Amino acid sequence: MNKLLFTPGPLSTSATVKEAMLRDLGSRDAEFLEIVCQIRERLLTIGNAARPYSECVLMQGSGTFAIESVISSVIARDGKLLVLINGAYGRRIQNIARVHGIAVETIEVPENRKITAADFSVSAGITHVAVVHCETTTGILNPIEEIGEVVARAGACYIVDAMSSFGAIPVDLLAAHIDFLISSANKCIEGVPGFGFVLARRAALEAAKGLARTVSLDLHAQWAGLEGDGQFRFTPPTHALLAFRQALRELDEEGGVAGRAARYRRNHETLCRGMRELGFEAYLAPEDQSYIITSFRYPKDGAFRFEEFYARLSALGYVIYPGKLSREECFRIGTIGHLSTRDVEGLLEAIRTVRS
Amino acid sequence: MNKLLFTPGPLSTSATVKEAMLRDLGSRDAEFLEIVCQIRERLLTIGNAARPYSECVLMQGSGTFAIESVISSVIARDGKLLVLINGAYGRRIQNIARVHGIAVETIEVPENRKITAADFSVSAGITHVAVVHCETTTGILNPIEEIGEVVARAGACYIVDAMSSFGAIPVDLLAAHIDFLISSANKCIEGVPGFGFVLARRAALEAAKGLARTVSLDLHAQWAGLEGDGQFRFTPPTHALLAFRQALRELDEEGGVAGRAARYRRNHETLCRGMRELGFEAYLAPEDQSYIITSFRYPKDGAFRFEEFYARLSALGYVIYPGKLSREECFRIGTIGHLSTRDVEGLLEAIRTVRS
Repeated sequence: MNKLLFTPGPLSTSATVKEAMLRDLGSRDAEFLEIVCQIRERLLTIGNAARPYSECVLMQGSGTFAIESVISSVIARDGKLLVLINGAYGRRIQNIARVHGIAVETIEVPENRKITAADFSVSAGITHVAVVHCETTTGILNPIEEIGEVVARAGACYIVDAMSSFGAIPVDLLAAHIDFLISSANKCIEGVPGFGFVLARRAALEAAKGLARTVSLDLHAQWAGLEGDGQFRFTPPTHALLAFRQALRELDEEGGVAGRAARYRRNHETLCRGMRELGFEAYLAPEDQSYIITSFRYPKDGAFRFEEFYARLSALGYVIYPGKLSREECFRIGTIGHLSTRDVEGLLEAIRTVRS
Repeated sequence: MNKLLFTPGPLSTSATVKEAMLRDLGSRDAEFLEIVCQIRERLLTIGNAARPYSECVLMQGSGTFAIESVISSVIARDGKLLVLINGAYGRRIQNIARVHGIAVETIEVPENRKITAADFSVSAGITHVAVVHCETTTGILNPIEEIGEVVARAGACYIVDAMSSFGAIPVDLLAAHIDFLISSANKCIEGVPGFGFVLARRAALEAAKGLARTVSLDLHAQWAGLEGDGQFRFTPPTHALLAFRQALRELDEEGGVAGRAARYRRNHETLCRGMRELGFEAYLAPEDQSYIITSFRYPKDGAFRFEEFYARLSALGYVIYPGKLSREECFRIGTIGHLSTRDVEGLLEAIRTVRS
């Protein structure tokens, strides 16, 4: 059974994206290298960035690998990272820094609250500041431009985890003063999982030379490889890259970020309206909520068992996602991926069936 | 054009392996978790190993990521690694250790010579020994059982990079005293690239708890995740795993490792005979040469230009591979992947055309 995925990823992708994988390409084949080039250029334009001021680096593995690639590659031994946290993905960045022995400070606000410029200052010694754009823990959207203003004034390097927002929420690297932005193939661009990518201010990337604490996740070396002979240093997921090239074409056909944002917003509005009618309460205030993923509180009736709810929806062909909040019992429903409002209506009908 | 890949990977795969990717599965879907389980169990049997004595861990990224996962996860801060080197992949292991600040010693023998038990001893203080099974640099096959005897007598932990041999050259984890064996999805099992895997002696894996120097590549944590709820800690390449499950079925249909070895050996023999007739000289002595990949010296005539040779063969639909030797000018031709002797004959015919 082909189920529809209402998750933060892997997501439902189009048939044509998957069919693009029905070829084997050599990793140093001229056609493949040209595809990698196209992908890197197109990703930059989605961030409203361009060479030579900005650069794009692709990194094998899941999105977390790309995050760790940045954190472990761009902070000098005497550097210090400030992580702004309002969910599990912010805490993950803190943990990555800790494991690599990087000095780290944190500002933590409650998971149901956006992080604003008023919440933090960049104290002396802080060289890098990291924040998550759309915290997938809740679906909250942090104001990365406003935060970027504070970081830029302090002269620190700004790292944005845009994993689940890039491609569906407009972002302007320069305007937001972003030095490193990280996202993944199988999020709002609607490719299949297998690699992540980093958009970087070129000067910040160049400054990372020799700072990496690993070989595989060395961001500068990966970039130097792609720039040198156009190849990945280590075997690339060729099929996932073919799928991604097709996914980028389909993003264009949909009208780019604006078109995709419009569909996801319709999906989200349809979901929230329907869930309200079914008696579910959203965890976040509407003004803080993104159209990427939405957390709903468990119903008040004691009979609700999430795993049973999940399994029955899955049996009907609809896959939702568990919660990840520290304190409150919630589940999550994503509205990204190759999904239409009709698909959302199908999910709502299935929830009605399961709950009746 | 669908070219045939005579490379060390990514390789040509069957149409049915690629078609297995035409589905989107959720990363916590029961069917997906069952597939991951099956893959892990089947991989163990290929290494003639079984639970609970042995364990299998899958790791996102290329094969090098899986190598780095082991090197950076299983050696304690006061440990010391001995790397036995006769090619670029041995040197890569040395480099990974160096970057992680792991004390490392090396024994290096010429690239055209196997490493034997007589070449090294395990001096006091050495806790881990690593060697590459089939050195893809040349195609040479190191005698991992004989080396394992020496390592086991010294009571050290034994790490084998079986990247390009596993699935096509029989290996017995227990008999060879192997603690950690590493390979990748897109080698002799003939899946698509996207992840690697590690077969481990369970006690050695358990001893690695808390030793990791990274988050993404933490081998013990990855294992604990797979054992705990059956899920990957971070987004898995679901499509590559679907392809791999199909690839394992096709390995069984071919008669397992013995069947696959027989086909690859036929490919290799057809290649070597044909290349000899065409005037090419193999780099290695036949008795040291694996049937995985073969290095050929550049022809003596000064007119030979590898890049032109490569490009013209590629235009005819045949992709070969450049050399990686430190001193000698060679190119390489792989005989693994979804290739038959007829395909090898096609390549030989193309080489004849290009050279005439």
